[in-house]
Amino acid sequence: MSVDIAVVGATGLVGEALVELLDEGDFPAADIHLLASGESAGKSMPFRGRNLRVRDLAAFDFAKVKLAFFATTAEVVAEYAPRALASGCSVIDLSGSGEGSLVLPVLNAESAELAQLPVLLRAPAAAAAEVGEVLVALASCVELRSLSLTACLSASQLGREGVQELARQTAELLNARPLEPRLVDRQYAFNMLGQVGSVDACGHSAIERRIHDELVELFPGLSGQLQVSCLLAPVFFGDALSLSLRTAEPVDLAAVRQALDAADGIELIEDDYPTVIGDALGQDEIKVGRVRSGFLDPCELNLWIASDNVRKGFGLNAVKLGALLIKHYL
Amino acid sequence: MSVDIAVVGATGLVGEALVELLDEGDFPAADIHLLASGESAGKSMPFRGRNLRVRDLAAFDFAKVKLAFFATTAEVVAEYAPRALASGCSVIDLSGSGEGSLVLPVLNAESAELAQLPVLLRAPAAAAAEVGEVLVALASCVELRSLSLTACLSASQLGREGVQELARQTAELLNARPLEPRLVDRQYAFNMLGQVGSVDACGHSAIERRIHDELVELFPGLSGQLQVSCLLAPVFFGDALSLSLRTAEPVDLAAVRQALDAADGIELIEDDYPTVIGDALGQDEIKVGRVRSGFLDPCELNLWIASDNVRKGFGLNAVKLGALLIKHYL
Repeated sequence: MSVDIAVVGATGLVGEALVELLDEGDFPAADIHLLASGESAGKSMPFRGRNLRVRDLAAFDFAKVKLAFFATTAEVVAEYAPRALASGCSVIDLSGSGEGSLVLPVLNAESAELAQLPVLLRAPAAAAAEVGEVLVALASCVELRSLSLTACLSASQLGREGVQELARQTAELLNARPLEPRLVDRQYAFNMLGQVGSVDACGHSAIERRIHDELVELFPGLSGQLQVSCLLAPVFFGDALSLSLRTAEPVDLAAVRQALDAADGIELIEDDYPTVIGDALGQDEIKVGRVRSGFLDPCELNLWIASDNVRKGFGLNAVKLGALLIKHYL
Repeated sequence: MSVDIAVVGATGLVGEALVELLDEGDFPAADIHLLASGESAGKSMPFRGRNLRVRDLAAFDFAKVKLAFFATTAEVVAEYAPRALASGCSVIDLSGSGEGSLVLPVLNAESAELAQLPVLLRAPAAAAAEVGEVLVALASCVELRSLSLTACLSASQLGREGVQELARQTAELLNARPLEPRLVDRQYAFNMLGQVGSVDACGHSAIERRIHDELVELFPGLSGQLQVSCLLAPVFFGDALSLSLRTAEPVDLAAVRQALDAADGIELIEDDYPTVIGDALGQDEIKVGRVRSGFLDPCELNLWIASDNVRKGFGLNAVKLGALLIKHYL
């Protein structure tokens, strides 16, 4: 038994990863509708041995499906999610637009399991999901007091255009051509950017606020105890996260390692440190390394995380959430 | 009046910056001896309109000079600094090898001013000096409780060979040639490395320990309250530092901005964020931006720093220190 589903924003980086994940696994989808706006409609994408045509979102009748993933901007969600819900189609919103319950499957799957259909659920930002999974794994051995996160995000944070921007700027510099920043307003190649996009009146960027707010929503004890800074590294894909936790009691590093090692969806890498390129890309686990306490503070726990933000951080969590919801329909 | 000086390790990235700084300014050097070991001896470098030959360190008589900068490894300092001191030549050690007093001129210049000559003084690591200068500037308006530093270091942290490694790896990847990591044991181009070199039994890298220990030595109140993580970004030059401070009282952001703006050696960049490439390279100021408090915690202060690690972080501080010492001889 299975139901028909839709992927809205199928041609974007995250949408494409969703389609791949739905294609690979045993996801209970009978038929899948790939949707996009404007220019992207009309393309075709492979799915279960066929080439599926991407259809125009504006013309789609959501009554045809029971579940739609929205891997789009918040504006598209605001316009089309109400239509989907009105047609009886549940929505999993990856945009961070703020409606519906936020669900991280390893933490609060019951929000999906108990939902009255149709429902709108939100999937966390990739980095929030990655940090969240690690915090769930550590819950048994660490009483968390505060958390400081410096997230080195990659060009993929800006979507396909971000990846193209970095590639083009890099080629311009290496070929001694004049640099022409377009999507990013300055040299991004071989440069660390201390800010992702514009900031609000308090100085926080939208992605910093999203990660902060989502982690506090998932872990209310972090309220007032969570520091988030997002940087943009000249790297194409992946999340590279530097975490420092303060705990109520001195950290038992052996217990931390054991808890990380035992967690589904996490791979502990010891005696070396993981990187996105070497370890995380295309993988279904968050790679965690550099487990160490502070120089002098035994209640400090430092971690280094490398993860495939698109596939693992966004895609896999959303797909798991979708599978939980579909159970209701069957 | 002026004295004769030597630069040991003159052909390295930091040594070269020292020679440039000594050449530019009104440093009271009569004659300068450029020294290096092995293959680098015999090269020539421009200084005050002449081409100076780099001499072999092993054959140098330190009695010829009153001051020597050591921009070398700790091993070279261990071998040659005692010879210099025995010949009446003071030493400024940039290697972090741990002997002598640590001096950050804006903080504790008296250690140089009161020194009995000849003396061995240590200059801090670039990132420690950069953070230290910012902390000195903030001392008037912030009572610091704890500090978390994520330092995105650049290829220059590994010296000239590091810069060459990143350039070669980048070219290999862009030209679809097989990647051949040499100095770094994995793909560094377009990849964030979560660790700089090997780590000790506690999991800290040497540069993390150096930055931590030097900052605690300069600011003893940070003992047990300082978290340091060093990453290696695929960037050629510069330090990009993400700082989060916790303070005793709610942060007065206007006072913080005013204090940073008023500090010599610091440029506050408002309404935008600084980067190494666009703002810091070749500059004599630390560029500070993204001054903001926490999302919910008014006692949290976040800062973003871009600095030319070689020229500003290492070079200028060492040269200032040298000028303080030379006053004694005149």
